[in-house]
Amino acid sequence: MNSELRQDLVSGDWIVIAPSRAKRPDQFIKLHKIKRIKTPVKGCPFEDLQKSGHHPPILKFKNSHDWEAVVVENKYPAFTHINVCASPEKRGPYSVMEGIGHHNLVITRDHYKNFPKLSKQNADLVFKAFVDYYKILANDYCLAYVSIFHNWGLKAGASIYHPHYQIIALPIVPPDVEHSLEGSNNYYKKNKKCVHCVMLEWELKEKKRIVYENKSAVVLAPFVMREPFELRIFPKKHFSYFEDTPSAVMRDIVFALQKALQKMEKRLHDPDYNFFIHTSPLRDKNKYKHYHWHIEILPKFNISAGFEQGTGIEITTVDPDEAAKFLR
Amino acid sequence: MNSELRQDLVSGDWIVIAPSRAKRPDQFIKLHKIKRIKTPVKGCPFEDLQKSGHHPPILKFKNSHDWEAVVVENKYPAFTHINVCASPEKRGPYSVMEGIGHHNLVITRDHYKNFPKLSKQNADLVFKAFVDYYKILANDYCLAYVSIFHNWGLKAGASIYHPHYQIIALPIVPPDVEHSLEGSNNYYKKNKKCVHCVMLEWELKEKKRIVYENKSAVVLAPFVMREPFELRIFPKKHFSYFEDTPSAVMRDIVFALQKALQKMEKRLHDPDYNFFIHTSPLRDKNKYKHYHWHIEILPKFNISAGFEQGTGIEITTVDPDEAAKFLR
Repeated sequence: MNSELRQDLVSGDWIVIAPSRAKRPDQFIKLHKIKRIKTPVKGCPFEDLQKSGHHPPILKFKNSHDWEAVVVENKYPAFTHINVCASPEKRGPYSVMEGIGHHNLVITRDHYKNFPKLSKQNADLVFKAFVDYYKILANDYCLAYVSIFHNWGLKAGASIYHPHYQIIALPIVPPDVEHSLEGSNNYYKKNKKCVHCVMLEWELKEKKRIVYENKSAVVLAPFVMREPFELRIFPKKHFSYFEDTPSAVMRDIVFALQKALQKMEKRLHDPDYNFFIHTSPLRDKNKYKHYHWHIEILPKFNISAGFEQGTGIEITTVDPDEAAKFLR
Repeated sequence: MNSELRQDLVSGDWIVIAPSRAKRPDQFIKLHKIKRIKTPVKGCPFEDLQKSGHHPPILKFKNSHDWEAVVVENKYPAFTHINVCASPEKRGPYSVMEGIGHHNLVITRDHYKNFPKLSKQNADLVFKAFVDYYKILANDYCLAYVSIFHNWGLKAGASIYHPHYQIIALPIVPPDVEHSLEGSNNYYKKNKKCVHCVMLEWELKEKKRIVYENKSAVVLAPFVMREPFELRIFPKKHFSYFEDTPSAVMRDIVFALQKALQKMEKRLHDPDYNFFIHTSPLRDKNKYKHYHWHIEILPKFNISAGFEQGTGIEITTVDPDEAAKFLR
């Protein structure tokens, strides 16, 4: 069988599914099995936050006792907050802007419990931390976008083992998000429908790439899969704004995310991965009603080589239908 | 010092230079020093091409004796050639296209001589192979774009040690190239100038990020550097089409590429890297006169984590000015 080019409905980008270069999922996994390095509790900078020189937590979340999740400032921030807004200035022909924004961490209590291992209650707390802090950031009129993500494992860029999540608030709407918003808007203008709703309707009818679903959420292997075993989690109903999602829906999404990661951990032998939230920008809240927020999980299997870097076309060697079947 | 957002002149994308998270170049390099795995000549599939089941070479290039470089079909192609053109068809709401195209390799004779170690004469031959085969591909009216690239090292996606280069011909213009062509065209319409020429003029005046130059070519660390120690090689004069570059200019470009890679090998301790050519599409040759073809080299240091994946914003922890000074 020949390879196939597939075009993303939102970004318009193309990827290649190349099954002739493919390994069957089980062989693929065997090739990529690497033992995770767990650093011990002793010496972990996220065990005693005060002792490791962190500022006092901005937000604390507890269940029965003590804290289960906190929001703290990142000690080595990529963006820092000062009392002015960033504005573009010229340097030669270029535009530059001071890196004004926020860079915070959500740290969970248990050194050994990553997101899929958290109790349902504590997993909900993590998302409560995301939403609560997101809403605080929304009041800062210097900010344009908040990116929430999780790095799991060295290959995914996590330099500290202890599970933690990052919230970066930016003075610009990031290029990839801008690109998706444009794609979603163009589709809406042309078809009077949300592009993600159309895609979900088709996927729920086809059933081939659905990995898990509950009342309000669905986990699927995208038809245009950039990375082997990539998964996406969508609210079934159309919500544009992460922060305004009803809490019953959010609980179903959190549970679906846990399920997706549990399946990955079990079937793919605990791979390194990133997950991140794609939502609408903070400002002009009426402008992005066409957009459908969601979560993307990208396990770290592919190496981005010269072709991917030079063209922006990812070559995926695992068929999305088989990936979903393998994970289900 | 705070971090700084910088906008690419061509793509409009933003990156972050975060010196507060940075290591000085020499410390940075110490951290990333890894010994290269050289597989032996015995068992190398590129030593005796016939014996390892390759089709006879499409093109052979020799200097004094035997071949020094050949163009051969990739045994495991991502794109395959049949006697029809690829055309988009619908699958559900998606567009798909058969992976019709070409996937070829340029293999050089010496198992241990990567591009920076080749004699000047043999390095020129590699680019002669690129140009000659490019011109053959240009006659196939099914094709839209030819991507030429090199993967060096496992981390850069090279599964075989023996130096080889890849030529992939595609039925579409790749999204990243399309994006750059648009940016270049928009700049031209607005300013009546080539965006790359403007940038080169500024860089040659500032001199801070120039790593090497000769009569026709310049090597620089881009002001908007996506990867630590990224380098770009430009013809000083404006040429839109790789394949139509005068051979004296091409020789200077090849020499500049060798210089750039020699400096990387020496100063950065032989890192893994990709290089690729960004040029204008095969068709509508009058449409892209605004574009300035060039070569980009991306060493493999960064890990693309949740932030980069979720936003498209790269965070670079080495200052481009310092990178250039360190390499010069």
